[in-house]
This record gives sequence, C-alpha cells and structure tokens, in this order.
Amino acid sequence: MTLTHFSSFASRDDALQYDKNDPLATLRDAFSLPGNVIYLDGNSLGASPAAAVRRAQQVIEGEWSEQLIRSWNTAGWFDLPKRLGNKLAPLLGAAQDETVITDTISINLFKVLSAALGMQQQCDAARTVIISERSNFPSDLYIAEGVIAQLGGRHTLKLIDDPSELPDVIDASTAIVMLTQVNYRTGYLHDMATLTALTQARGALAVWDLAHSAGAVEVDLNGANADYAVGCTYKYLNGGPGSPGFVWVPKRHQDAFSQPLSGWWGHQAPFAMESAYRPDPGIARFLCGTQPIVSMALVECGLDTFSKTDMAALRRKSLALTDAFIACVEARCGSHDLTLVTPRDHARRGSHVSFASPHGYEVMQALIARGVIGDYREPSVLRFGFTPLYTRFVDVWDAAQILGDILDSGAWRQFAKATRDQVT
Amino acid sequence: MTLTHFSSFASRDDALQYDKNDPLATLRDAFSLPGNVIYLDGNSLGASPAAAVRRAQQVIEGEWSEQLIRSWNTAGWFDLPKRLGNKLAPLLGAAQDETVITDTISINLFKVLSAALGMQQQCDAARTVIISERSNFPSDLYIAEGVIAQLGGRHTLKLIDDPSELPDVIDASTAIVMLTQVNYRTGYLHDMATLTALTQARGALAVWDLAHSAGAVEVDLNGANADYAVGCTYKYLNGGPGSPGFVWVPKRHQDAFSQPLSGWWGHQAPFAMESAYRPDPGIARFLCGTQPIVSMALVECGLDTFSKTDMAALRRKSLALTDAFIACVEARCGSHDLTLVTPRDHARRGSHVSFASPHGYEVMQALIARGVIGDYREPSVLRFGFTPLYTRFVDVWDAAQILGDILDSGAWRQFAKATRDQVT
Repeated sequence: MTLTHFSSFASRDDALQYDKNDPLATLRDAFSLPGNVIYLDGNSLGASPAAAVRRAQQVIEGEWSEQLIRSWNTAGWFDLPKRLGNKLAPLLGAAQDETVITDTISINLFKVLSAALGMQQQCDAARTVIISERSNFPSDLYIAEGVIAQLGGRHTLKLIDDPSELPDVIDASTAIVMLTQVNYRTGYLHDMATLTALTQARGALAVWDLAHSAGAVEVDLNGANADYAVGCTYKYLNGGPGSPGFVWVPKRHQDAFSQPLSGWWGHQAPFAMESAYRPDPGIARFLCGTQPIVSMALVECGLDTFSKTDMAALRRKSLALTDAFIACVEARCGSHDLTLVTPRDHARRGSHVSFASPHGYEVMQALIARGVIGDYREPSVLRFGFTPLYTRFVDVWDAAQILGDILDSGAWRQFAKATRDQVT
Repeated sequence: MTLTHFSSFASRDDALQYDKNDPLATLRDAFSLPGNVIYLDGNSLGASPAAAVRRAQQVIEGEWSEQLIRSWNTAGWFDLPKRLGNKLAPLLGAAQDETVITDTISINLFKVLSAALGMQQQCDAARTVIISERSNFPSDLYIAEGVIAQLGGRHTLKLIDDPSELPDVIDASTAIVMLTQVNYRTGYLHDMATLTALTQARGALAVWDLAHSAGAVEVDLNGANADYAVGCTYKYLNGGPGSPGFVWVPKRHQDAFSQPLSGWWGHQAPFAMESAYRPDPGIARFLCGTQPIVSMALVECGLDTFSKTDMAALRRKSLALTDAFIACVEARCGSHDLTLVTPRDHARRGSHVSFASPHGYEVMQALIARGVIGDYREPSVLRFGFTPLYTRFVDVWDAAQILGDILDSGAWRQFAKATRDQVT
C-alpha cells in the first residue's frame, strides 16, 4: 500500500475496496463503537475495547467485592503499574523494567523534570534553562513553570516558536530540552533520534512527551537514547477516560536522582513502614501513592488491542489514512477556506490531520451534529485523529464528503461559538 | 445505646439482639459483601457498594463506548472532581467549593505542604520546620522529605514521639504542624480543634490527613478552623481500590499560593490553551491533570452509601462496635498475650481497634484463613476496622471467639512469617 502521492478515492466503492484489502481491518472488531458515528477523535479519547466492560465487572465483582483487601496480592493489584508498564514497553522501544503506568502525564512530567534538573544540578549547576516550544501542550509548560517556581526561580523556561531554532538555542546554559514528539494541534512529528543526539551533544537532557505518539507512531526510546519520557494511555492506547499515565526512565538514569513526589509506593520497602524515605533502586521510585485500580486495570484491555499487530503495520495504515484524508478533503472541499496545518511529509506527520478554518469551531460542531466526531482546538483548528486499529478508509471518504456538504451549504452557520470545554 | 462501660455480650444471641435493635442495620444492604467472611478491614479498603458494578457498566458502555469524547461534557466527567468534592463536603464539615476529589493522598499532601510553606515563606521566612509524628503514616513523612529536598533543604522535618510533646515543640520556627487525625496503626484520635488552635496561636499552619477519619469519625474542618486537609476515598468512604484522594482548602487560603503541580486542570481557563499558567482563583487550582474517570465515578457510589444516615449516628455505632470488640476480646482472650494499643477513651479513639501480639503476623494469617479479615501492621499489630455502615455486632462476637480459638489452639503456629505486602 503506497499512498504517499495518493489522489483521493475515485468513489465510495473505491474506499470500501481499500477496507476489503486492509490486512488490519478485523482489528476493529475488538472495539465497541457506536454505529451512527465516524469517530475521528481517538487522539483525544481512544474508543472502548469490547473487553473493557467485562474486565471492570471482574475487578469490581470478582476482585473487590469478593476478595476485598486480599486482591492487592491475589489479583496482583499492587504490581499493575510495573506489569502494565512492561506490557506497554514494546510499543515505546523500551526495555523491561523501564516503564510504569501511574498517576497523570502532568504529574509524571513534574517527577521527570525534577529528577533531570537534579541530575544537572549535580553535574553542571550553570545549566538552568529548560527549552520547549510555545506550541507545546500547555500543561507541559505549566508544569515546567511549577517546577521552576518550587526550585526557587534560578531556572528559566525558554520557549521557541519553530523547531528549526533548536540547533541555535541549545547551549551551555541548557539543562533540558522538553518536547512533545507529536504536536497536539498541528500533528507535527519531531525526529526523536536526531534531536536527542543534538541535545545530548550540547550536554543537555532530552525529555519527551509521547501523549500523541504512543500507539500512534513508531517510537524507539532506547534506539534514540532518550533521557526521560512521559505519556498517557487514554488516547491511542485506548485505556479509558483519564486512565493513568506512564513514565519511562532508562536504566542508566533510574538511580541517578530521587524524584520529589516521594510517596510510599516508590520506597524500597513500602510495607516495612520505615519513617525515612529510601527510594527503590529501579523504576518503582517513580511511583508515589496508591493507584486507581479499576481505571488502571482497563489500561490492559487497551494494550491488548495491539496484540495482533505491531507498530510498523499500524504506522503504514496510519499514513495511508491521513494521506487519503488530506487528498479527499482537498478534492471535495478545495474551493473553501481550509488550510492544511499538518505536514505532508510522512517523516514529520503524526496520526492526526488538522485544517485551519476561519469558522473552525462552528464547522466542527456541524460535523459532530452529522456524526463525524473530531475536535476543535484554539485557534481555528479542525482536528481529525486516525486510529489504524479501528478507523476505516470508508470513514475517511464519508467524513470528507460530509465536511464538503457542510461547507457548501453553510450549515455550520447555525452553530454559535459558545462554551466549548473539551478534553484533549 | 451506651456502651462506654460495655462488658462483652452475654452470648451470640445477645449480639444478634443488638443487631436487631440497630437503627443502622439496613445500611448493610447497600453493599456487596461475600457471605463467608467477617470483614474488619474497611479501614484499609472499604467494601464494594452494590451499585458500583452497574455504575461502571454505565460509564463504560453508556458514556465511554457510546458517547465517546462527548461525555467529558454530556456526562459531566470534567466536573466530577468538584461535584463529588461538594458531595463529600458535609462529611468533613467543609463548605461548598472547598474540596476536590483528585489524584492520590500523597500527591495532594505534596500540593498542600508546598502551598503552606509558600504562604509561610511570604509571611515569616524564619518558619522553616514541619512538625509531625514519627508514628504518622510513612508516606506523609516521605512526602514532607520530598518537598523539603525540592525546596533546597532550608526546611526541616521534626518528628515527635508522643502527641503530648506538641505544646512544647511548636514555636517561632514552626511553619506547619502536619498530623493524621486518626493514627493508622494505633487508632489514636487527635483533637483537631484544640491542636489547630494551639498551632495557629503559635503562628504555624495546621495540615490534617483524614485518611482514617473521613467517613469514620465526625470531622469538622471549618469548625476547627483547619488550614489544609487531604484524605483518601478508598477506606471508610468505600470509593473502590485506590480511588482518587481529596484535598480541602478553606476559601480564605485558596488564592493565597499556587501549588507547584500546576497542570492544566488547575488553570483558570484550561481550554484557552494559553502558554502561561494562571491558577484558578478557587479550589480548582489544586487540580493538576486528567482524572481516571471510571475509578472517579465509583467514588460517588461510595458517597451514596452515607445518604441515609449522618456522621453522628455512624460515630455512635462505631464506638459501640469498638467498645464491644475490646470487651469481647478481653473476655474471650484475656489469658493470652494481647495488649490493647487503641485508646479506651472515646474522645481519643478512631474507628479501628489494634492489639499488639508477639506473633501478630501469624495470628492475622490464621484469622484470615478462618474468614476474619483484619490486617497486620509492623511491628506486631493486629488491626481490626469497624465500619458502622456494614459491620454487625454479631461480627464482633464471632471475630473475638475465632481469635480466642486460634490463640487457645496455637493454630497460628502453622503460618510462617513470609512476604506480607498489603496496602493500608
């Protein structure tokens, strides 16, 4: 399947033929999807694995209700962060015992930035700058601000406006380069290996946020020799609404510094009830407190949806889907004011496609009313996520046609811009 | 029902008669409890509300699978931390909009200690000492260590060995007095109002951990004029294994200081996607990132189990249960080496009873094998939790008789001390 120069489907039947020939088409059967929508927002909240409701029932009835406190041991609740972290590892290019599922992405970023700044403080106290992108997901920037304030203000956060500035700005004052691999708004994909090498060549540490890349693109943390990474499980990993995040620390850094959220789950002997903190020597020191087990258990159902394929195959289909969507929209809606925000270059594209539209918010509301669920991001961005596990080529065709209808008819005009809280 | 000088039941029938006369007896019907155990560990993991499994099914099938991303708004997911915090408030003596359900107790303590130290830094930078008890739940002490290290080491953690030392140790160097209202091991209950007043009279701030008191004893945070509080929902509040914790901040302190886990859920306009952090002016600034919605939704089922009673009635029954258990154990097991660790004084007793035993670990294993589920805490403590929502007087009688049998027969000897991970 080579769609790099794809020029739209000839017809809906043509799209259906692509689905017929798609070797991954049956993976969709593992999901519980409503019949009346085209879901293009798996980059915000992954669809529900069909196994999730049974798993929740098992945890609540079989483990919690029946076995009660004993399930911390007998049902393996206490080991879930490490066991599921190891199950996630192959999707990240991580080794075993380098990843834990826990807490939230923002909290994990706080741990990681604190540990990385602590390492730099020991090595070279003159390195006080965290570099990131102004267009990074805001919470990452807010967390960097929080860490900096807590450390007394001797560090600074430097924001760049374009990735091309990186070679110039990383210097002897740089402590950390903190990047999100795939930009939440534009879908721009950073070259992790090259940027990590550049960062480290200048003596800084590379911290990666994989929110929009884990389960979406081929990630190779150890191949890139990354320093730290965080991510979430509720987008492409299909772990459920707000399911716990993850934190990855390579073995070489694990005992380098103790992170400040030093709760008892990160202690070397949590049940010895010692009054002083002794961090676990391994990845467990990045744990803090007791985890939400029902939500945590459902992460496994999400990870299991990857068991019959691999990231290389998923990436091929993801690029085919996004190529096709760009082509179909441009063919069907070319006369309207839509600007492709996402790179055409495969090497720079994640798994979602964004178009800027002067009436983006209203257009997205109209799409949702017609059953095409994408989302809107300030300012003016229509965002469409393509999840190769369950998105079909015919969904691509249909979504582009409906978008064309809405723009042709002006039907979006009836959707006034109002409150629009939505969670990324 | 006055059991202060209770001298054991005359017989099992006598205990059954107490259940017959118990106005709260029917509250047990709201729980899904296995028939073959006497559950005395609700202080570690509350029992499952019968409504929980249906609620999980509704969230997964009706909200996640069917409505997908739209449920953040239509199912009110985004508002759960605040809405459930307000539902919890009456059990804590809290006003509306002072409590959020979020993250874990350890993480919430990190936020609160950071905010309180920040306030003190602004008011009186010479106040650099956090006072707590050596016997406090270890994670609280570890978190204080983590905050102190992050702040550069100019603060110290001072641990006292007995609450009677407090009037002497709180002085002009004290920034915070951090106490857990009910001690996790002994069941000792602090006088929140008196200690808060003492703390504040000396210019320090009173931070309370309510892990073993929320839903167990009458808590009156505003009545005591407390400064900050944290707690968990998975013990007496029956929210489910590892269900999210809570943080309480009175209105007078909410905008005093921004806590460092400054994620986007704490931003004044989270969906404006601004690159700089502007904390919400109210309690929402104590939120950080996206919450685990399935686990979070089940917290409501736990809170609903309180809807047909109040804390005064529950406290009366709790004291009756613990009085009866102490009396029954002393009557049945008086010849054995058991030492009551929990205060006899009602004013100093939480809702669990602990006995030290030279073979505590083995004795607890033998009890569990006989279906009496309490837990063991280092060193040598048998811990029995009494949850007035579902614990019966006949459970008290039966548990004491089985404990007597085990001690008489030496049946505990077959349970070797081995790995014993268990979660408090």
